[in-house]
Amino acid sequence: MANKLTPRAEDYSQRYNDLVKNADLAENSSVRGCMVIKPYGYAIWENIRDVLDAMFKATGHQNAYFPLFIPKSFFSKEASHVEWFAKECAVVTHYRLKNWENGEGIIVDPDAKLEEELIVRPTSETIIWDSYRNRIKSHRDLPLLVNQRANVVRREMRTRLFLRSAEFLWQEGHTAHATAEEADEEARKMMNVYSDFVKNFMAIFHYKWEKPEHEKFAWAVKTYTFEPMMQDFKALQAWTSHNLGQNFAKAFDVKFTNKNNELEYVYATSWGVSTRLMWWLIMSHSDDNGLVLPPALAPIHIVIIPIAKTEEDQKEILNSLAPTLDELKKSKFTINSEFLGEYNIPYKVRIDDDNQKTPWWKFNEWELKGVPVRIAIGKRDLDQWHVELFRRDTMEKKFVKLENLTEEIKKILKEIQENLYIKHMNFTKEHTYTADTYEELKEKVEKGFVLAHWDWTKETAMKVQEELKATIRCLPFDWEIKEWIDPISWKPSARRVIFAKSY
Amino acid sequence: MANKLTPRAEDYSQRYNDLVKNADLAENSSVRGCMVIKPYGYAIWENIRDVLDAMFKATGHQNAYFPLFIPKSFFSKEASHVEWFAKECAVVTHYRLKNWENGEGIIVDPDAKLEEELIVRPTSETIIWDSYRNRIKSHRDLPLLVNQRANVVRREMRTRLFLRSAEFLWQEGHTAHATAEEADEEARKMMNVYSDFVKNFMAIFHYKWEKPEHEKFAWAVKTYTFEPMMQDFKALQAWTSHNLGQNFAKAFDVKFTNKNNELEYVYATSWGVSTRLMWWLIMSHSDDNGLVLPPALAPIHIVIIPIAKTEEDQKEILNSLAPTLDELKKSKFTINSEFLGEYNIPYKVRIDDDNQKTPWWKFNEWELKGVPVRIAIGKRDLDQWHVELFRRDTMEKKFVKLENLTEEIKKILKEIQENLYIKHMNFTKEHTYTADTYEELKEKVEKGFVLAHWDWTKETAMKVQEELKATIRCLPFDWEIKEWIDPISWKPSARRVIFAKSY
Repeated sequence: MANKLTPRAEDYSQRYNDLVKNADLAENSSVRGCMVIKPYGYAIWENIRDVLDAMFKATGHQNAYFPLFIPKSFFSKEASHVEWFAKECAVVTHYRLKNWENGEGIIVDPDAKLEEELIVRPTSETIIWDSYRNRIKSHRDLPLLVNQRANVVRREMRTRLFLRSAEFLWQEGHTAHATAEEADEEARKMMNVYSDFVKNFMAIFHYKWEKPEHEKFAWAVKTYTFEPMMQDFKALQAWTSHNLGQNFAKAFDVKFTNKNNELEYVYATSWGVSTRLMWWLIMSHSDDNGLVLPPALAPIHIVIIPIAKTEEDQKEILNSLAPTLDELKKSKFTINSEFLGEYNIPYKVRIDDDNQKTPWWKFNEWELKGVPVRIAIGKRDLDQWHVELFRRDTMEKKFVKLENLTEEIKKILKEIQENLYIKHMNFTKEHTYTADTYEELKEKVEKGFVLAHWDWTKETAMKVQEELKATIRCLPFDWEIKEWIDPISWKPSARRVIFAKSY
Repeated sequence: MANKLTPRAEDYSQRYNDLVKNADLAENSSVRGCMVIKPYGYAIWENIRDVLDAMFKATGHQNAYFPLFIPKSFFSKEASHVEWFAKECAVVTHYRLKNWENGEGIIVDPDAKLEEELIVRPTSETIIWDSYRNRIKSHRDLPLLVNQRANVVRREMRTRLFLRSAEFLWQEGHTAHATAEEADEEARKMMNVYSDFVKNFMAIFHYKWEKPEHEKFAWAVKTYTFEPMMQDFKALQAWTSHNLGQNFAKAFDVKFTNKNNELEYVYATSWGVSTRLMWWLIMSHSDDNGLVLPPALAPIHIVIIPIAKTEEDQKEILNSLAPTLDELKKSKFTINSEFLGEYNIPYKVRIDDDNQKTPWWKFNEWELKGVPVRIAIGKRDLDQWHVELFRRDTMEKKFVKLENLTEEIKKILKEIQENLYIKHMNFTKEHTYTADTYEELKEKVEKGFVLAHWDWTKETAMKVQEELKATIRCLPFDWEIKEWIDPISWKPSARRVIFAKSY
C-alpha cells in the first residue's frame, strides 16, 4: 500500500481518518455510528485491556459482569441522571420479528411489545447499584471493589472512529466504601493507576488534575482526570475518576451498618476509560509516515523482511535466521511500572515473506502501522552475518551483527519507549504557556495549554468559553499555588488553572 | 455460610441453582432473563477466555470487534435466518428518552423513532459478512481467520443462570476460505481445539462427533460438536463448529478471484462457545459439598486458613509462613495441551484471615467454592513445622512439612486435574450403553447415553424423540463402524449413533 496520508499541516482531521483507515485499525460499519475494530486495532486494545486489568487486580479489584439492558424505570429515580446519560440512547421496545404476510421480508411483530422498555446501557451505575443494594448490609461487606469490561451505547450525531462512536468499549469501576475519606482515596488512587499506565505504557505526558466544579460530573463530589495535549494542541478527555460521595447510595437507597451500629449511606466512586484511548495513542505519537506505537502496547514489536530475488534465496535467508528467530521469540523486554513493578513483555515477531509484494511496499506498510523495529536482510548481509535494523521513532537505520541482535533490540525497545514519552513531554511543555492578561490568554490558547489565574466563578469560565472557545480543563495538582488576580474579571485568584481548546 | 445445598438425589435442578448462588458465581438481575456474573464466577470465565484465546492465536486467528446492532434489513436477506436466529430478539426502535411533561418521570420520545429498526445481535454472521464483502477480493485475501468476543441477546422464556439467559457472553469465530476442503479442515481443527481445551483444562470427557443432518445448523454443510454427559445423564450442547460451505457467501454475495482468475463464492466456517461452558464445569465435577474446580481454571488454587485463638497468634502464624508464601506465589504448575504445549499457570493463593468467621465456617465456604487445595495451620503445627493439607476432589487430609509444601502442591494440583478427568470419563463410560432392541433403548436412555443403530432417516429419529424424549446427539467419530439393523424401523443401518436425553 502506498502511503496516502493527508499531510498533517494540510488537514489534521482528514489525516487522522486516513491513518485509522490505512493502518487498518478500524472502519465504519453499515450501522450508523458503529465501528468495526479491525484485528490490528483490536490487538492494541487487548494490550491496553490486559495491562489495565493487571493494575486493577494489583490494587485489589475484581471483574464482574452486569446486564446490557437497564429498565426504563431505573432512569426515573433521578431526573439529572437522564440529563447526563440517557437522553440520547437506544431504546428496546419489542422482542420479536416475524415474516411479513405478503412474503416481502420481515417486520417487527406489533404484538410483541415489552411491558417496560429497556435501555441499552449508556453506563452501568443504575444497574450495578441495584445489585449492590442486595449485597451491602454491614461495614464488613465493604469495601466492594468491582470493575466491568463492557460495550456501551450513546447516540452520537457526528461520529469519528474511536473518538466518538455510538457503541464503544470501555471499563467501568464501581466501588463502595464505608467512609468519605476512603472513597476519595480510592478515586485518587485510580487516577494514579491511569497515570502510571498512560505514562509508562502509552508514553504520554500529562498534568494530573482535578476538574473545576462546573465541569465535573453532576453526581460527583470530585472528578479527577488528566487530558494530554494532542498534536493540534487540543486537550482530550478519555477517562475520569469520580468520588461520588453518598449521592448514588441516596438515589438507590443503599445503606450499611457502620462500626458504631448506625445505618449510614454508602460512599462510592466510579472510574473508567474507553476505546477513546486509541485516539490518544494515535494523536500523540504519529508522524508524517504514519503511526508510531510505543513498544509496550504494539501488537508487533519486530517485523523481519527478507530481501530476496527468488523464493530459494528467501528460503535460504530464513533458514539462516532460524536460530536468531528462536532466540527473539523467547526474549522479553521490561516496563517499570509503579503498580506492577517489572512488567515483562515477550517480543512479538512477524516475518513478512509475502512474495507478491516488493520490499519497498513492505517498508512503507510497516512504517504506516508503527511497528517499532524493522529488520531487513538480504543474501549479501548474510555473508557479513549482519542485518539492517530500522527504528520507527527516529527513522534511523544501522547494521547489527546477528549475535548481538537480541540484546540490541532490547536496548532499542526501551529507548523507543522512553524517547516517545520525552518527545511528548517536550512537545507539551513547549506548548504550555503562562498568561497574565486576557490578550495573552487569547493569543496563546490558540497554540497550546495556558496557565492563567481564575477567580473560581463559573461566570468567568463561561465568558472565556464563549469568547475564546476555550475551557478550564483542570486544576493541576503539580503546580505552584500562588495568589494573584484573575485577568478576565480582575477579581482575586488563588492559583493558576489550565485553559485549553478541546475536542 | 453454612452449606445449604439441596442434595443431588433430591432435586437435581434446585441443587444446581443453590450451587450457583451459594458459591457466588452468578445471580438473577432486575432485568428479566439477564444475569449478573459475580466476581468469583467471572474469574473462572476469564480463565476460560484466556486459554481459548491463546489457542485461537496459536492456530492463526485474530480477534476483532463488530457492532452490537444489526439493521433489520440484514435479516431479510434470507428468510431461514430469521427462523434460526432472529425471531425472538431485542428490537431497538427509538433513540431518545425525555422528561414527561407532567414531571412524573421519563418517557420514550415518540418523535425519536429510528428510520430502520436495529436488532441487538443474537449472533453476528450478518454484520460480519457484510464487512467481509469489502475485504475479500482475491484468493490472496484468504484465509481470513477472525474471532470475536461479545455479548449476544436472545429472548428466552424460561431462563436459568448460565444455561439459558437472555444475554450471554460468548466467542464467535468467522472464517473465510478459498476451497471447500480448507473450510472443512478449519471446522474440524476448531473441534479439536475445543476438545483439547475441554479435556485438558476443563477435565471433561467427551466423544467427538458430527451432528446428524436433521440436527445440524440449517446453513451448515456439516456441524461438528461434542456434548459431555452431565451428572443427571443428559447431554448438553455448549459449542458447535460449522462448515458453512458457500451458503453464507451466496446470501451476502461475497466472491473472490481464485487462482485460475475465476470469480467464485467464498467458503466459510463459524464456531463458538458461550458462558454455558460454566454449566458444564459445574454439572460435571461438583459433589454434595459443592463445586469442585479443575486447578487449570480455578480462580484460587490454594486457600490458607490460620487457626488461631487470638489476633496475636494469627499474626505469629502468618509471619512464620511468610517465606513459604513467597515461594508459593512464585510457583507454577503445568498443563500439557495439544495446541499450547506446556502451559504454565502461576499458583493463585488466598489467605483467609477474617477474624469474624470460625475455621469451621471457612472450611465449608471454600469447599463449597471448590478451591482445589486448602491449608490449615495452628500454633501447634508451627512447632512441628508442618501444615494440614486438604484436597477438594477426594476430601483427603494429610500433614506436609513446610519445606516440602511447594513441591507437594505441584504434585497434588496435577493429580486433581487428572483425577477429575478420569472420574468423569469413568462416569460417562459407566453410563454409556449399547442397545440392540427398541425396549433396550427405551430403558437405557433413561440413565445414560445409548449407542444404537439408526437407519439415517429423520422419520425414525422423530419417532424416538416423540416416544422416548431422546434425540440423536451425534455420529461419534471414535466408534466402530459396522452395519446392522435399525431396531426401530428394522431397516438397514450403517453404524451406531448416540441417543440421549438433553437440555
